[in-house]
Amino acid sequence: MAETGLFDIMYSTRSMRKLKTDPIPDEVLYQILEAGTRAPSGTNTQHWRFIVVKDPAVKRQVQAIYQKGWGEARAMYDNRPGPEHIPTEKFRRLLNAATHLADHLAEAPVLLFACLKERSLPPQLAPRLARLAGSSIYPAVQNILLTCRALGLGATLTTVASLYEEDLKKVLGLPNDVNTYALLPIGYPLGKFGPVSRLPVEEVACLDQWGTPFRK
Amino acid sequence: MAETGLFDIMYSTRSMRKLKTDPIPDEVLYQILEAGTRAPSGTNTQHWRFIVVKDPAVKRQVQAIYQKGWGEARAMYDNRPGPEHIPTEKFRRLLNAATHLADHLAEAPVLLFACLKERSLPPQLAPRLARLAGSSIYPAVQNILLTCRALGLGATLTTVASLYEEDLKKVLGLPNDVNTYALLPIGYPLGKFGPVSRLPVEEVACLDQWGTPFRK
Repeated sequence: MAETGLFDIMYSTRSMRKLKTDPIPDEVLYQILEAGTRAPSGTNTQHWRFIVVKDPAVKRQVQAIYQKGWGEARAMYDNRPGPEHIPTEKFRRLLNAATHLADHLAEAPVLLFACLKERSLPPQLAPRLARLAGSSIYPAVQNILLTCRALGLGATLTTVASLYEEDLKKVLGLPNDVNTYALLPIGYPLGKFGPVSRLPVEEVACLDQWGTPFRK
Repeated sequence: MAETGLFDIMYSTRSMRKLKTDPIPDEVLYQILEAGTRAPSGTNTQHWRFIVVKDPAVKRQVQAIYQKGWGEARAMYDNRPGPEHIPTEKFRRLLNAATHLADHLAEAPVLLFACLKERSLPPQLAPRLARLAGSSIYPAVQNILLTCRALGLGATLTTVASLYEEDLKKVLGLPNDVNTYALLPIGYPLGKFGPVSRLPVEEVACLDQWGTPFRK
């Protein structure tokens, strides 16, 4: 039986970058998308839009765009120190796994795009709201990642394809006001699920003001 | 016993805008934050930072900023049609509940800020990555919302306080490179949890390209 305890799922949902090519039943994809739509969005507008890419020709075009984006991102990471809390060798392995994903992207049975149909905003608000737009799509993405995990599917939240948004728009036929925010390659994982490791709460949370660690 | 089935939780986590003033134990807040940190972030950088505001004086200052932001947002909503799929009267009630939240914000036992310590980006990438920054914080926010629900706490994902980022930075003592992305008022709810209603998948998901509804 699939494991579906909230905490077990949240604590063992990690990026799965190596996937089998086995197809995913449409009923399963539907369940994943439906769970995504149970997330919040600004004033419940539900301006999220999803594109489920299964067509091999479309997947190959997406992969070419993804590789261009990842190439730029990888160059950036290679030219600066990694996060302080990740040993250099471990970070290099993470980057190599991401390169593996880029080189095999089209082999994933499904490439799922999470998009937003952008809302028109008054000019005095638009610049200040721009960086907050993701608040109406990434919660749905997280529901999708948790659901994949619960159903035994591997997935990864990626954003580098969106560096070439105009190219993606052409390949996916997106209207001008619909933007991609994430690309999730989804498939049955080659690796195993396991506990994720994270910094302790005290190192990332403060009480009342910056500088006072929050402790229980 | 608390309900912790993933799907039961996801399908009944809705915005709770009317909260009791009862305090939340620190152990519970710690559990909520820890679950948040189990979300993904770009190359596992974990550049999220959280501020747990319990001090009444700080909460009152935050409320004043929030009310300024919500006032602007409400004016925008009042001056245009609501989402097509929400009846006008229902949408007006949603806006009124949001105004109630703004007017009583400081009464919530906890105001939780989700922030990002911004990473320095090469100039050729920064403009294209800007709208995607939320991909490293809103998944954690969704884990937090689901955990609140599982533990019987009400919460809402709000962003309007961040319209006045400089004011918030002063009140919270944030460094220049740490930005707020969400404010979650958290407390035991006055209302009841229940199923959320959403558009069917067919209306928000396409197969392979824009324009072809995805069906199971």
